Amino acid sequence: MNKKLTPLKENFSAWYNELVKQADLAEPTAPRGAMIIKPYGYALWEAVKNLLDQKIKETGHQNAYFPLLIPASYFAKEEDHIQGFAKECAIVTHYRLTTHADGKGIMLDPNARLESPLVVRPTSETIIWESFRKWIQSYRDLPMLINQWANVVRWEMRTRPFLRTSEFLWQEGHTAHNTREEALDHAHQMLQVYCDIIRNELAIPLIEGEKTAHERFAGAEATYTMEALMQDGKALQLGTSHFLGQNFAKAFDVRFVNQEGALTHVWGTSWGITTRLIGALIMVHGDDQGLTIPPRIAPIQVVVIPVFRSGTSQEILIEKATSIRKTLASHGIRVKLDQRDTHQPGWKFHEYEKKGVPLRLVLGPRDLANHTIEMLRRDTGEKRVISLDRLVSVVEEQLIAIQDNLYKRALAFQKKSIHYVDHLDQLQNIMQRDRGFVMAHWDGTTATEEAIKQMTQATIRCIPFDSSEEAGRCIYTRKSSQRRVLFATAY
Amino acid sequence: MNKKLTPLKENFSAWYNELVKQADLAEPTAPRGAMIIKPYGYALWEAVKNLLDQKIKETGHQNAYFPLLIPASYFAKEEDHIQGFAKECAIVTHYRLTTHADGKGIMLDPNARLESPLVVRPTSETIIWESFRKWIQSYRDLPMLINQWANVVRWEMRTRPFLRTSEFLWQEGHTAHNTREEALDHAHQMLQVYCDIIRNELAIPLIEGEKTAHERFAGAEATYTMEALMQDGKALQLGTSHFLGQNFAKAFDVRFVNQEGALTHVWGTSWGITTRLIGALIMVHGDDQGLTIPPRIAPIQVVVIPVFRSGTSQEILIEKATSIRKTLASHGIRVKLDQRDTHQPGWKFHEYEKKGVPLRLVLGPRDLANHTIEMLRRDTGEKRVISLDRLVSVVEEQLIAIQDNLYKRALAFQKKSIHYVDHLDQLQNIMQRDRGFVMAHWDGTTATEEAIKQMTQATIRCIPFDSSEEAGRCIYTRKSSQRRVLFATAY
Repeated sequence: MNKKLTPLKENFSAWYNELVKQADLAEPTAPRGAMIIKPYGYALWEAVKNLLDQKIKETGHQNAYFPLLIPASYFAKEEDHIQGFAKECAIVTHYRLTTHADGKGIMLDPNARLESPLVVRPTSETIIWESFRKWIQSYRDLPMLINQWANVVRWEMRTRPFLRTSEFLWQEGHTAHNTREEALDHAHQMLQVYCDIIRNELAIPLIEGEKTAHERFAGAEATYTMEALMQDGKALQLGTSHFLGQNFAKAFDVRFVNQEGALTHVWGTSWGITTRLIGALIMVHGDDQGLTIPPRIAPIQVVVIPVFRSGTSQEILIEKATSIRKTLASHGIRVKLDQRDTHQPGWKFHEYEKKGVPLRLVLGPRDLANHTIEMLRRDTGEKRVISLDRLVSVVEEQLIAIQDNLYKRALAFQKKSIHYVDHLDQLQNIMQRDRGFVMAHWDGTTATEEAIKQMTQATIRCIPFDSSEEAGRCIYTRKSSQRRVLFATAY
Repeated sequence: MNKKLTPLKENFSAWYNELVKQADLAEPTAPRGAMIIKPYGYALWEAVKNLLDQKIKETGHQNAYFPLLIPASYFAKEEDHIQGFAKECAIVTHYRLTTHADGKGIMLDPNARLESPLVVRPTSETIIWESFRKWIQSYRDLPMLINQWANVVRWEMRTRPFLRTSEFLWQEGHTAHNTREEALDHAHQMLQVYCDIIRNELAIPLIEGEKTAHERFAGAEATYTMEALMQDGKALQLGTSHFLGQNFAKAFDVRFVNQEGALTHVWGTSWGITTRLIGALIMVHGDDQGLTIPPRIAPIQVVVIPVFRSGTSQEILIEKATSIRKTLASHGIRVKLDQRDTHQPGWKFHEYEKKGVPLRLVLGPRDLANHTIEMLRRDTGEKRVISLDRLVSVVEEQLIAIQDNLYKRALAFQKKSIHYVDHLDQLQNIMQRDRGFVMAHWDGTTATEEAIKQMTQATIRCIPFDSSEEAGRCIYTRKSSQRRVLFATAY
């Protein structure tokens, strides 16, 4: 059975949840707020992971692995950090279960209580900086460039697959540097690595900038972010890169002897992206028919479906379809042949449409005679019959065109949705109607930021890097301001 | 400073721990029993992971990701399973920490106790079979072939880096099948996939067979294993593949409509290998100078070290060394150039020797004139001066030769260490002296197996697949036996 999705414009949240389920990306499961990432969803994550892992290595980092369970006392060392994270952790207190006295069911073994509790990592700064203290003695040990692929747990009250789950997968980079300037540059460089992949491979337009003090990572001196606009007009933060200053170096006493022989604290950065990117992909490129995956990260770029009609030879059709699959695969195209006879062609069409496969090729009996195949573009719905002689070049060209079109379409939507406003009521109106990105003046205080959020639900997503100087007045206090900042209602 | 390792024959355990530290593979850390896998150790794991992931996909499996935290009640569903695993789990009972009333330090928030505890997964059968119930309805859904790369936690009392740690990384395959035969075949097939990689890539000889009922996985009908012999004469289990019968299908009520329209339970398998493989690599191929890594999985296959002497041009030497690095890299050889001037050549020689880099190339001023380079094999210590004209072919040939030699050397040791005995005192003597593998008759009962362990410390590692029928008498009870089984003291 192929069920239709609730239309995106009717109920975005229902559309999203149905799409995640119907495209077989993930499903919610116990415990509350957790999800299973199903094979098709995981293949998307693997595509992102492979691309990013290569870039992380090319920029000089090495992967390592640190423990999942962190002594609670580590979190107490950096004051802001504990404030920011202690409220949402899973805590291990026991190391054994035992069966009930009546032999039915199981319970905590009261004799197996840990002397001090362990935190399931919500992020790994504490344990990594604890190691940096041991690993770093001299300027020769710097820069220390470490990355970890891992799962983390944060206790969330309101969850949604990919966007906010109690456990998620991510990559967390942690680095230590000789100078403030080098660390600052590094934090910027890694944000740029993310942006390049997200723009070029995921085809998602971004606005980059710095977070306000209020939205900064707990323990950072500066947090850089990339924000994207979803089709419901809400913003999603896709990843952050933090300049930690010497905060963690001081909290964990990480010092080194510099070139001049002086003992001094190192400078740090940390940066991460998560499985949330899959959520962004859905909300930026999806439509009422389902997902649309940018070809460069599509697990399946092309699906080939043979369509039998009574009286024609199935064998010849499958033979031809197989040879088409092989030809495309030999050119490095990720192609799947679906020749199952347990499902009808119509069912298959819907299936790959929902799953967002960029190109569909349908081979029917008539094509055999004509040496042709029917091609359908997922992004535009455009259908063409093409000659098999030109198959590879047309497919390659179309995959590039789809990638290009998805980015342009999303960029056009983003541009159309950026509003420049000078008064609070305008921001209020926009947030009550279509939402979107709003560029407006702000007086630079947390009090104003919070007041505006109270009244409009919009938060400051970032102070965009490319926001030029412009004299103006704060939309709330009318105090003077030197540049506009980016407001939006956020996930 | 380059410290010498304790000789392997003097104190194997000290040698192992020192090697892990000095080769920069891993280090113990809080909490008790945990380790940090350092970049060089993690690169070894990545090499194993990449090879195996490809094979797992080629054999039709898809990767997915299931939650880390599993409701404790799930474990109660399969009776043997809970008996086998409940004793060694990390249990999450709270979801928040709070600061002490005095503002100093942190404590559990008594108001944030979970209604029912969550287990940090020691293995994922329970949550995966819970999903299989929802995913499997018809024979069309079978076989269901799922794999997961994940971290797991088992509370261990006596730990050692890579061999036994409270948390480790692994891959766990979980499959469901139409018939008993297909599931049995699959369990065997996946063991063979492991064996191929471990023999051909890790150069470790194996003995494969079935575990006795006593040593079987909690919840399996049959457990297949591969056992390797370490240089101290102890055995290490390198991975297992389980035929689960219908145990989990019944415990989690996973039924399907078969081709004949009847509703019946599926048949299951599960199989895994872990970061323990890195420990095996060390204990099979290491020596008093450090690690020796088989070229096929070596993160660095060749290191190039330029040696400056006063009066010669550093620039020309580095230029030449760089061109050598590029030439080798362009032929797909994993090569590193170490041109740091912060370390002496002697220090570097020791460093890469400890790290087990298969080939070392040293370029000195005389080589520039002679168009030569000095090559040292890590496995044999053989040193040769070779012409740069033949560099690529000699390096390629030597890498193959080293891979081959490591396997042959380990196989010779294994063969020399297999004893056929017919009396208990012989087994006792062997286990008190050099240990090794012992093939002996056993009456097939758990009672005898336990008695023999009591008296000799040796356990039955497996009933080897290639153990041929042979009438004999149990070394303990003198009852009749049809085949010999493999005894050893195990890690």
